[in-house]
Amino acid sequence: MKLPDFEDIIVAHQRIGRFVHFTPVLTSTTINLLTGSEIFFKCENLQKAGAFKFRGACNAIFSLTDEQSSRGVGTHSSGNHGAALALAASLKGIQAHIVMPSNSPAIKKRAVAGYGGIITYCEPTLQSRELTLQKIADKTGIEIVHPYNNSTVIAGQGTAAKELLETVPYLDLVMCPVGGGGLLSGTALSVKALSVSCRIIAAEPLGADDACRSFKAGYIIPSLHPKTIADGLLTSLGEINFAIISKNVDDIITVSEESIIASMRLVWERMKLIIEPSSAVPLAVLLENKGAFQNLRIGIILSGGNIDLNNLPF
Amino acid sequence: MKLPDFEDIIVAHQRIGRFVHFTPVLTSTTINLLTGSEIFFKCENLQKAGAFKFRGACNAIFSLTDEQSSRGVGTHSSGNHGAALALAASLKGIQAHIVMPSNSPAIKKRAVAGYGGIITYCEPTLQSRELTLQKIADKTGIEIVHPYNNSTVIAGQGTAAKELLETVPYLDLVMCPVGGGGLLSGTALSVKALSVSCRIIAAEPLGADDACRSFKAGYIIPSLHPKTIADGLLTSLGEINFAIISKNVDDIITVSEESIIASMRLVWERMKLIIEPSSAVPLAVLLENKGAFQNLRIGIILSGGNIDLNNLPF
Repeated sequence: MKLPDFEDIIVAHQRIGRFVHFTPVLTSTTINLLTGSEIFFKCENLQKAGAFKFRGACNAIFSLTDEQSSRGVGTHSSGNHGAALALAASLKGIQAHIVMPSNSPAIKKRAVAGYGGIITYCEPTLQSRELTLQKIADKTGIEIVHPYNNSTVIAGQGTAAKELLETVPYLDLVMCPVGGGGLLSGTALSVKALSVSCRIIAAEPLGADDACRSFKAGYIIPSLHPKTIADGLLTSLGEINFAIISKNVDDIITVSEESIIASMRLVWERMKLIIEPSSAVPLAVLLENKGAFQNLRIGIILSGGNIDLNNLPF
Repeated sequence: MKLPDFEDIIVAHQRIGRFVHFTPVLTSTTINLLTGSEIFFKCENLQKAGAFKFRGACNAIFSLTDEQSSRGVGTHSSGNHGAALALAASLKGIQAHIVMPSNSPAIKKRAVAGYGGIITYCEPTLQSRELTLQKIADKTGIEIVHPYNNSTVIAGQGTAAKELLETVPYLDLVMCPVGGGGLLSGTALSVKALSVSCRIIAAEPLGADDACRSFKAGYIIPSLHPKTIADGLLTSLGEINFAIISKNVDDIITVSEESIIASMRLVWERMKLIIEPSSAVPLAVLLENKGAFQNLRIGIILSGGNIDLNNLPF
């Protein structure tokens, strides 16, 4: 297995730079005082389609050959990856088939449809999702774009941390949430390439701590019955992701649901940014472990802002 | 009466540049499609203390002589100006007395207190507010900083539009909300100085349309019984503000409460930005008058993001 490296991230950035937002890095004096460190928030919630996922999807779409493009792409997704892939495909003028569980939130269905994605509904099980997608692929020859266990997608996600370190030099630590590991593996590659001393620590909900346990065990432990409000972090680590994470990440730290919700509300109230629960997990780590993170320059990737305003946890 | 001019805004920007955020300008493909124009949102909701008010407050505070500084400053405010003045004063290490109606929202009281403001509560009437403040001034000799009818404050507010036009050239139109007219008069001075062709149109809730009626009548008509969710826009125009607005603003257009709430929700959902209702009024004008604003490059100042998350209109 040839793992992606920082060269792939440089190429990805050149490829997708004209399509993605170079998102701002924002700070909050109040949150700096609360944590005892200087925090630089990379606002991927302000990315197109509302999440970092658009970077990886764009890199996958604009890496296709003409022949692949003519057949279109597909994925199964209940969340941000489906919308991101649909939008990226529409920018290239090609078809995107998105398999969605029938019980997906209406707002996610609308987003995918609004970007021109062709939705096929399935039962809300992984088996049904994979089977339905495979049937479409067999019939149409579409290229299946995995949401995270895909080197091209990982290289795309790595461009967020690349921009962060190009905007704010001399960081001591970069943090991001971990679910399937797409963002974390891309981030780790960028951070380790661009700094000799910057650490990278991932944050994970205690109720979905498969990445933390896998990281400590040295092999992938699947996520069996995850339970967390951070709906973007329910998935198990991918193999490519795990290989990169094992080698490049310094630690994975878990936090409680209460801390995630409190951190999310803090960012809403003090930074005026709408972030989804997954985005709040790194800040929750800092607030739960204050003593361990004092007087540091810390970059945090706010991963996304897609949340149902009619169903807030506060 | 010597009115402030663009020279004052240039000086203000040099004075406050190190204290204020140079806020980002963000765009939304979806909102561009909905309106038929290209819109550039200047994000003053991401300004320190959550609103453009911090610019004017900073300029007022850092324009004081040492002798004035030693006595401190004061204002009466139920909203953003009080918090902004308290924060600016704390940065200079001087005292700020903020007179607040006793029924002010708890979140506003916490903000002022959190920035070190010395709060004096009063009855929720304009008379009680002015009287209470005057008593403090008589006793302490504080400099009273009016929230908008003040040339130094106006010059500070004008720096937001200056940054907007420096970030995005060739705008056809700049829009902002109007309440007391501090933001609008500063914005008008910057826009007219930096572009020969860019129009400036203010947006106002129909339920608080005193600025629109004053603009058309040619004299100030006080706001008597304003009723709108846009709580930043309840005040009457100031005299200095009106003089600048009469001369430099192209039009003032009113909108319904329903449009304000729908526009606010649109920005929350699609741009992931928390804006208060006042900030949504210009976009509401565009959505209510689609035919009149096609194929333009439009700058909109999102004035602030201070809103009680426990009391949302949707």
